Amino acid sequence: MLDSIPSFGRLVAELAKFPGVGRKTATRLAFFLLKQSRSECEALSRAILELKDKIGFCSHCFNVTETDPCQLCTDPGRDDQSLCVVEEPQDLIAIERSRSFRGRYHVLQGALSPLDGIGPEDIRIPELLERINAGSFSEILVATNFTVEGDATALYLAGLIRPLGIRATRLAHGIPTGSDLEYIDDATVNRAVEGRREI
Amino acid sequence: MLDSIPSFGRLVAELAKFPGVGRKTATRLAFFLLKQSRSECEALSRAILELKDKIGFCSHCFNVTETDPCQLCTDPGRDDQSLCVVEEPQDLIAIERSRSFRGRYHVLQGALSPLDGIGPEDIRIPELLERINAGSFSEILVATNFTVEGDATALYLAGLIRPLGIRATRLAHGIPTGSDLEYIDDATVNRAVEGRREI
Repeated sequence: MLDSIPSFGRLVAELAKFPGVGRKTATRLAFFLLKQSRSECEALSRAILELKDKIGFCSHCFNVTETDPCQLCTDPGRDDQSLCVVEEPQDLIAIERSRSFRGRYHVLQGALSPLDGIGPEDIRIPELLERINAGSFSEILVATNFTVEGDATALYLAGLIRPLGIRATRLAHGIPTGSDLEYIDDATVNRAVEGRREI
Repeated sequence: MLDSIPSFGRLVAELAKFPGVGRKTATRLAFFLLKQSRSECEALSRAILELKDKIGFCSHCFNVTETDPCQLCTDPGRDDQSLCVVEEPQDLIAIERSRSFRGRYHVLQGALSPLDGIGPEDIRIPELLERINAGSFSEILVATNFTVEGDATALYLAGLIRPLGIRATRLAHGIPTGSDLEYIDDATVNRAVEGRREI
């Protein structure tokens, strides 16, 4: 029925492109917008375009930023000896939120995935190697995700980093804080036992 | 961290206004938009504004429409004797999809809810009574939702419609098609037993 209203159908089609948003959710969102005032819709519409106009990637670390180079690359208070390599800006945010790392970052903008045809040249690995060669890093923390692609990327990078005499590290695998052993998957428990530490 | 990028923060704040979208989902959607091309973002942005500019409510039945009166009100092929009253345009769509009703519609744009201060004057009940008085309806199907508010609205409307000598009906309550009795809630089974029919 609403498909006979072109402007409604177009918005639903656009909203359904969002990840995790199907036609039903998109219709619900479109009805929500229909009930909003014009100025509220304008604010959303403007915010979307502003994002594209103002935000780019840092030419140094490839994090998202409004200024180039980004705040993290120019901050004099950060440690130039350690570098944390992540897949996506979201991962960088997670580490920053934990306040556990004070060095520099490098965002790969993806992970190696031979099955999808994504090789080292398709993500920011050449730029990473350039930074490593030009820098004075003593440790590189490879904080890629604990997925098949993330693991493959970490292994690949470790193979490149170690011969340079630089420490390559990875985030610890184990039981998350506040969780009940009973409900943790076998693979995680397995890795937690393997990685057990003296107390 | 990303809060230090104003344009990103603004978009997340706008997206988080959607129903069912919290800060985390909004951030995910914003990252998705960041990866889209400028022309794709423009299409979404334009579709949002177009919705507000082109779509309004039918002055007759209060359904959403690009033309006034809407297609359903002007369609000569529909039955002028029966009227279906729904809460929202989405409900109308559900009934239209079922192809089980060929009369006219009236969208209340809400339901009675004394606790929220929503009385008959706050939804399209005065306009409904006007239509009933001016029209020649022999049956009014009150298809409000099966919620406390929907039930209250249906009872209220039945009290107004019956004295006019017009049949007031309600959708059947019962077990949904394709479902397993075992998993249906007690209230529904109760109503289904009460409403049992000869076979």
